Amino acid sequence: MTIQPSDSIRPVRFEDGALRLLDQRRLPSEETEQVFTDAPAVADAIREMVVRGAPAIGITAAFGMVLACRNARGQTDWRARIEADAGHLRDARPTAVNLFWALERMQRVIAGCATPEAAESACQEAAQAMLEADIAGNRQMGALGAELIEPGQGVLTHCNTGSLATGGYGTALGVIRAGWDAGRVRAVYADETRPWLQGSRLTAWELVRDGIPVQLLCEGAAASLMREGRVGWVIVGADRIAANGDTANKIGTYGLALLARAHGVRFMVAAPVATIDFATADGSGIPIEQRPEREVLELAGQMVAAPGARAYNPAFDVTPAELIDAIVTERGVVRTPDRTRLAALVGR
Amino acid sequence: MTIQPSDSIRPVRFEDGALRLLDQRRLPSEETEQVFTDAPAVADAIREMVVRGAPAIGITAAFGMVLACRNARGQTDWRARIEADAGHLRDARPTAVNLFWALERMQRVIAGCATPEAAESACQEAAQAMLEADIAGNRQMGALGAELIEPGQGVLTHCNTGSLATGGYGTALGVIRAGWDAGRVRAVYADETRPWLQGSRLTAWELVRDGIPVQLLCEGAAASLMREGRVGWVIVGADRIAANGDTANKIGTYGLALLARAHGVRFMVAAPVATIDFATADGSGIPIEQRPEREVLELAGQMVAAPGARAYNPAFDVTPAELIDAIVTERGVVRTPDRTRLAALVGR
Repeated sequence: MTIQPSDSIRPVRFEDGALRLLDQRRLPSEETEQVFTDAPAVADAIREMVVRGAPAIGITAAFGMVLACRNARGQTDWRARIEADAGHLRDARPTAVNLFWALERMQRVIAGCATPEAAESACQEAAQAMLEADIAGNRQMGALGAELIEPGQGVLTHCNTGSLATGGYGTALGVIRAGWDAGRVRAVYADETRPWLQGSRLTAWELVRDGIPVQLLCEGAAASLMREGRVGWVIVGADRIAANGDTANKIGTYGLALLARAHGVRFMVAAPVATIDFATADGSGIPIEQRPEREVLELAGQMVAAPGARAYNPAFDVTPAELIDAIVTERGVVRTPDRTRLAALVGR
Repeated sequence: MTIQPSDSIRPVRFEDGALRLLDQRRLPSEETEQVFTDAPAVADAIREMVVRGAPAIGITAAFGMVLACRNARGQTDWRARIEADAGHLRDARPTAVNLFWALERMQRVIAGCATPEAAESACQEAAQAMLEADIAGNRQMGALGAELIEPGQGVLTHCNTGSLATGGYGTALGVIRAGWDAGRVRAVYADETRPWLQGSRLTAWELVRDGIPVQLLCEGAAASLMREGRVGWVIVGADRIAANGDTANKIGTYGLALLARAHGVRFMVAAPVATIDFATADGSGIPIEQRPEREVLELAGQMVAAPGARAYNPAFDVTPAELIDAIVTERGVVRTPDRTRLAALVGR
C-alpha cells in the first residue's frame, strides 16, 4: 500500500504471527509498540485504550480473532475456545459498533472453516482485507467530504479520528487531510478533548507530523471560536450511528453540534458504513460507556481534584440527526440524514 | 468577622504590614501563603494567577496600594511613585473591571491625604472595609440568588467563584453555598474548567472542605448533563458586565449559556455591582485577555501536545445579555437584564 506525504501513520500491524499496536496512551512523548499473541490481552488493550477509535478497534478485534484461532490449534473444543475469546473482545468497549461488526464478520469466516488452522488463515486474510478496505474507504470518504468544504474555510474537529483511530488516513481527519491537500481548508482547529486529550496528544501529533498546521483549544473555547467566524464546518467521527442518523461520538460532540447550529456553522460526521447500526432505531438505544471517575479527577496520573470530589464521566454522547448537516461515508454523502436517506445509501 | 461552617476560607489577608495571598496555583496539593511587601510584586502575583477571580483581584490590588503608599514614605515625589505602582497593578490583567474600580477608589482616598503616611493609613482602612463589604455583599447575593432556585434542583457552575475568588464566601459559589444551606440545591456539578482547572483544583477543594458534595465534569460533558435533566440552573460569576448586561467571564461561560438555553436550563450571573461597567455599552467593548499558548499545550508543566502545534487560548468570553435569566448583585436581582434594568438597580 502507498503512503502519501500527508498520511504516514499506521497504528495496527500484524506481523510474524503477532499483533502490534502503537501504544496511543504514550503519544506524543513516546512511540512504542505493544506486541500481542492472545485475544484476552488484545481485549485488555482495547479497554485500556492502547488503541482507540471505532474503526481501529474493529480492525484490532479482527486481528484478535486471528490470535484466537491460532491459540485454539490442536484443541478438540477449538470452536468453543475461539468463541470465548470473541466474548472477551466483545466486552471490551460497549459503544463502538465497529467492534461487534468486525467480530461477526470473523465469526462468519470461522464458521465456514473445518479446522482452526484453516480458520486462522482465513481470518488473517479477512482482517488484512478489512484493514486495507478501511484505508481505501477513508480516502474515498476524504474526497467526498472535502468537496463539501468551500475553499478558504476553517474547520474544527474533536477527539482523534485520524490514522490512529482507523487503519490509516482517518475518517473526519481524513476529510480534513483531503481538504487541506485540495487547498480547501484554510485553518485546522482541534479540541484538546478532555479527559484523554486525544486532540492534544494524537490529532496534533498526526497533523504536525504530516505537515498540516493545527491550533488546539480547550472545549470551553469552541463557542468563542465559532462566534469569531473562524470555522465553517465542525467535522467529527462516530462510534455508532443509529438507523435515523443519531450519532454517538466522543463526549463533547453533542455540545459542539448545538454550538455549531447556534452560529450557523455546519456539522459533518465522517464514518464508514460499518458504523451505521440499522438494528438501533435511534440514539436512545445506544449504550453510553461510563468511564472511571479518576480519568477526570487525575491529571497525568496525579490526583488534581480535592480528595472527596466525585466525577461525572460518560465517554460518549449522542448528537441528534437534526443537528447533522451531512454524514459522509465511503459509499456516498447523506445530507440532512434520516432513516430513509440512510437506508437508501446501503440499498435497504 | 464570623466564619460559618460552610465558609472557612480567606485567600487575601493583610497582617503586620504585609499582604498574604494563599497561592492558588498550588492548591489543592499544597496550602502555602506568599508574602508581599511591594506593589510590583503584587502585580506579578495577579498576572501569574497566585490570586485570581475578579473580586479577589480588586481587593488584592487595593492592598497593593497600601504597600505602594508605605514604600513612598520619605520620598519627595511620593505621589508619582504611588501612581507608578498603580500603573503596574492596572496592567496586571485587562478584563476584570473590579481591578480598575478598586484602584480608582484607592486613588481617590490618596488624593485626599497630605502625606504618604496618612495615605497608607487611609488606604489600609479602605482596603479592609472593601474586603469586609465584599464578604457581606456575597452573603446578601447568596441569599438573593438562592431564592431563585426551586428546591430539589441540581446546579452547574464554571471556574471558581468561591471564597478563593473573592474576599470570602463567593459570588456564584456563594449562591450555591446559600442554596445548599437552605436545602434548595440537591446536587452541585462543577466544570473542571480548562486550561487552569479552577473547578477541579479550587471549587472542588472549597466545597469538599465545607462539606458540600460535588461532582466534577469535563466541559465537553455539560451538554449531556443538561440533556439528562440533572441541572436546573447554571450559576456563574463575572469579570465584567457591560451596561446592557453582556457578561465577560471565564472562557467556556458563553458556550454553557447557549447549551443552557437549548435545554431550557436557566442561567444566573452572580457578581457585585462593582463588576458592572457602565462606561462600556456592550460586550463588544470588553477587551478579552489572550493567555500564553503553553497553558493549553502543557499539562502540569509538561508539554503534552506535539511540538509544532499552536493554541487558541482566550481567557474569557462574552455571554450576550439575552442568554442571561438573572444577574444577582448585593443590591438586588435583575431579571432578563438590559440597559434600563441595570441602570435602575444602581439608581442611574
